[in-house]
Amino acid sequence: MDFNTGHGYAGDKVGRIKALMCQACHGLDGLSKVPDAPNIDGQLEPYLVAQLQTFKSGARKSDSMSVVASSLSDQDIEDLAAYFSAIEMQVVF
Amino acid sequence: MDFNTGHGYAGDKVGRIKALMCQACHGLDGLSKVPDAPNIDGQLEPYLVAQLQTFKSGARKSDSMSVVASSLSDQDIEDLAAYFSAIEMQVVF
Repeated sequence: MDFNTGHGYAGDKVGRIKALMCQACHGLDGLSKVPDAPNIDGQLEPYLVAQLQTFKSGARKSDSMSVVASSLSDQDIEDLAAYFSAIEMQVVF
Repeated sequence: MDFNTGHGYAGDKVGRIKALMCQACHGLDGLSKVPDAPNIDGQLEPYLVAQLQTFKSGARKSDSMSVVASSLSDQDIEDLAAYFSAIEMQVVF
């Protein structure tokens, strides 16, 4: 999220509220809190959108995500993907 | 990877060689090189094992990963998961 340009900010702000439903497993920082949930901090936005859509459609299955994604609108999915993808992540060398 | 204790070293070294087949999409650093491949640097090891197994079994489908995973042994999957999960990643605040 870039506070100077505002790029991604609206999406992130809305996304952060919607992300409250994700935090028990993925954290608001996108770092996994349970062994079977992936880290999603800084994950590619198109990948997050695609995976949420495949969970929603049933093409990909998960005990938790199949339930959660079934309730998401396309806008929810865009907002959540915008939020988590905007978290900056780097590899530590 | 901890060079002092050697923890994870053997797995990582073998995994790094096997990871050459992954690098075009995921990079040897685990950072995605193509829009439809996720970052997998520092991803949870049990999650990586589970996903590779579901791609191999056909329970999860992907044009590229369904092909790649079909050729992987259980040992390959363990080595690759050990390698990518050992890459240190952090959220930048």
